[in-house]
Amino acid sequence: MSLNFVGLGLHDERGLSLRGLEEARAAELVFIELYTSRLPALSLERLEQLIGKSVRVLKRSDLEEDSSETLKAMAGKRCVLLVPGDPLVNTTHTALRLEAERRGMKTGVVHAASITSAVAGATGLQSSKFGRTVSMPIPRDAPAVESPYLWIFENISKGLHTLVLLEMDLEANRYLTIAECITVLRSLEALYAKGIARPQSLAIGLARIGSEDFKVKADRLERLAHVDFGEPPHSIVFPSRLHFVEVDALKVFAHAPDDALEGYR
Amino acid sequence: MSLNFVGLGLHDERGLSLRGLEEARAAELVFIELYTSRLPALSLERLEQLIGKSVRVLKRSDLEEDSSETLKAMAGKRCVLLVPGDPLVNTTHTALRLEAERRGMKTGVVHAASITSAVAGATGLQSSKFGRTVSMPIPRDAPAVESPYLWIFENISKGLHTLVLLEMDLEANRYLTIAECITVLRSLEALYAKGIARPQSLAIGLARIGSEDFKVKADRLERLAHVDFGEPPHSIVFPSRLHFVEVDALKVFAHAPDDALEGYR
Repeated sequence: MSLNFVGLGLHDERGLSLRGLEEARAAELVFIELYTSRLPALSLERLEQLIGKSVRVLKRSDLEEDSSETLKAMAGKRCVLLVPGDPLVNTTHTALRLEAERRGMKTGVVHAASITSAVAGATGLQSSKFGRTVSMPIPRDAPAVESPYLWIFENISKGLHTLVLLEMDLEANRYLTIAECITVLRSLEALYAKGIARPQSLAIGLARIGSEDFKVKADRLERLAHVDFGEPPHSIVFPSRLHFVEVDALKVFAHAPDDALEGYR
Repeated sequence: MSLNFVGLGLHDERGLSLRGLEEARAAELVFIELYTSRLPALSLERLEQLIGKSVRVLKRSDLEEDSSETLKAMAGKRCVLLVPGDPLVNTTHTALRLEAERRGMKTGVVHAASITSAVAGATGLQSSKFGRTVSMPIPRDAPAVESPYLWIFENISKGLHTLVLLEMDLEANRYLTIAECITVLRSLEALYAKGIARPQSLAIGLARIGSEDFKVKADRLERLAHVDFGEPPHSIVFPSRLHFVEVDALKVFAHAPDDALEGYR
């Protein structure tokens, strides 16, 4: 009896690694959860064909409040849980894995691509220059949550870039867009005035990284707020001072106009 | 004419995603570089069988000093460059990609697993609590390079964990071990006395993450220095204060003894 967490990567069922596919094919029961992130082009039908067996979709409640029931259904079997991105980046997975171990199940992980490392390749920014990744929630109450703003400032003041992940509430079909995130950060700039979200501040918007129709665009916030990034997932990077290779990369891979790079070279 | 950077993930050729395999099969020329990291169990023969064509191994000089020659050999063809981990995390790849674009080649990326996100799943520590990742070089001169030590301190003082990647000089067949890294950090502790590398400081040693014979062990530095982690790649995590789920995870997944967790809860 075992529970193997297998990552699906960033885009569709082809983000599965060859080892992940082997594990899913060898499992007696295959589950999938699709609420912790969004795979823009996943087809459950193609995935089932690939694996050669049916895949049961688990909801948030199956992995959280009702995790005991879910683990009971898995007991005594060789099980795989397919998850978006790289497994166990989400705390829910870690809690479930701990509970499975407590019940005597052997657990394992098959890693896959994650936005937290893909952001370097997608933008051309140096991986080693990223500080803490932050998450921007969908605004539900006033005032806005200020910690992402303050972490961007903290990172920039240490010469580090910041990846900001934008919340997706997939069960409610609501997701934060890059434009909305800019509005929130601009309102926090008005309060805190740390100089990181001014109209001329440079940022890089990212959408659907890992897809064939991904979009990466670097520009001043005042212009980036008007760019249509299309379907989620969206994220946004606030860079610190740039190395000259990073300047070139933002021009070529993120179509940064010259005036947006002023003050960052 | 195109150059697609395709990630191989962490362990062997089965870290390739299904989309990466498709791209390699569709390419006219397939290259691989194996010097920026080590895939412990990669077989070039099995990889060539999988792709159905021969794969040319590029050395460091082919991608750096002689990159013009390499790009000339690629000109006019649909090419794939297979790389360990997630592509373009390494600056060499970004420079090559920029040069390819300058020559009019279309470039792309197929992402794969990277230690920078896999570390969360391997240890059970929260991904969102990691600060800047640092690299510890093989000691070549005295005094030791102090920046990794100072960054660990910087991260801990903000409540953040630090992943320390240990240098591998694969062309010289020399790699920094966890025990050697601890020795370097202990010597820096004697100089700077910031309290992050004392005998009783908690750290988590990681070896061959993504492999079936991976090893993850959390303990006090004084004991961790004597653990045999086997073959590289090695890395080490210096945690900040732990959430209770992280405490449980380190006990279950990293066999942390109780006394090593004192002061971190």
